Amino acid sequence: MNNKQQGKKRAPQKKNQIQNFEYARKLRDKKVKIYLRNGEVLDAEVVGVSNYEIVVKIEDRNLLIFKHAIDYIEY
Amino acid sequence: MNNKQQGKKRAPQKKNQIQNFEYARKLRDKKVKIYLRNGEVLDAEVVGVSNYEIVVKIEDRNLLIFKHAIDYIEY
Amino acid sequence: MNNKQQGKKRAPQKKNQIQNFEYARKLRDKKVKIYLRNGEVLDAEVVGVSNYEIVVKIEDRNLLIFKHAIDYIEY
Amino acid sequence: MNNKQQGKKRAPQKKNQIQNFEYARKLRDKKVKIYLRNGEVLDAEVVGVSNYEIVVKIEDRNLLIFKHAIDYIEY
Amino acid sequence: MNNKQQGKKRAPQKKNQIQNFEYARKLRDKKVKIYLRNGEVLDAEVVGVSNYEIVVKIEDRNLLIFKHAIDYIEY
Amino acid sequence: MNNKQQGKKRAPQKKNQIQNFEYARKLRDKKVKIYLRNGEVLDAEVVGVSNYEIVVKIEDRNLLIFKHAIDYIEY
Repeated sequence: MNNKQQGKKRAPQKKNQIQNFEYARKLRDKKVKIYLRNGEVLDAEVVGVSNYEIVVKIEDRNLLIFKHAIDYIEY
Repeated sequence: MNNKQQGKKRAPQKKNQIQNFEYARKLRDKKVKIYLRNGEVLDAEVVGVSNYEIVVKIEDRNLLIFKHAIDYIEY
Repeated sequence: MNNKQQGKKRAPQKKNQIQNFEYARKLRDKKVKIYLRNGEVLDAEVVGVSNYEIVVKIEDRNLLIFKHAIDYIEY
Repeated sequence: MNNKQQGKKRAPQKKNQIQNFEYARKLRDKKVKIYLRNGEVLDAEVVGVSNYEIVVKIEDRNLLIFKHAIDYIEY
Repeated sequence: MNNKQQGKKRAPQKKNQIQNFEYARKLRDKKVKIYLRNGEVLDAEVVGVSNYEIVVKIEDRNLLIFKHAIDYIEY
Repeated sequence: MNNKQQGKKRAPQKKNQIQNFEYARKLRDKKVKIYLRNGEVLDAEVVGVSNYEIVVKIEDRNLLIFKHAIDYIEY
């Protein structure tokens, strides 16, 4: 976007960016504790994060966890 | 919608803003009691709120809580 | 849809309005009984309603309840 | 889809209508049996249906039921 | 997008079609075993499928099942 | 974002692609262990993946599993 456009039409786009911001994406490559809805607690390293999934490594296991199954993450 | 409003193109945007309004965003920096679906009750300070997440501090723990895991918040 | 309506291009907008209609918004300022997924029943006064939240007052407590945690509301 | 329809640019709209079709809306004014996720079974008369809610009358009680709390409806 | 791509206008639409593809719609008119979140298993004939619902016939019962209440379907 | 990219109008599209990326689609044709919300663990071969569904083969059974019923997948 060039400066002219920014002068006029800035707020909506910026708002949109804020709206789509996700904290989970900041956890990539971090070691976290994941509390699941089934009561399990996983000590995991976050490998990747998408809209609905968190991919982790737990020792030699690779898990694709759906966010809907997570209650909270301690980091 | 009457013709005047159509001429201004204002109404749809305003409507949209109302539609996307969220009370949870007002809790930022407040001390709240979070009741989770797993029965836990967390005395927490709200650090940040995004579309699907609430980030809190509980003493020295940092938690990213998914909203889907929350039943209600007392503030 | 008859030909007249198609000519005016009005119908889709109207349809959209119907699609987004929500009964919950009518409960604002009413006293209701909220049945939660955790089994709790709350006698509450509805203070505000947003897309995913219902804010209520129960005596001197202020609660932000997520709609996903509600089974049904008696009004 | 035949060539004629493609020529008119009508098909996408039609497709969209099919995509948004909901069986629940046909239950308006009918007497149904609603099976909830909490195990309750409600003998109810459907008063209204919106995207995420079903409003019913059960004897002298008025209930706004969230669809997410319903397992299935017998009609 | 450059002009060449715009001239074809084919790819985005195709992508979209893939994105919206649903296996459940192929079950129409089939006899299936539906495993619900409440533990019930229904031997059913699929009558119709919409975005969020599956309508089935079980002997002489007509059920509108919400997909959110289904764990999996054996077909 | 640098000025060159801004000139081409390319970035937004790319962003969108990242936003819609899903790890689950990479599991197609793989043998995985699927942990369900009901406690079941399925040793399955992934046949297909759509937005909300994962289709698997377990010996001679064909299952359409809704993602919402899955806690995590080990692969």
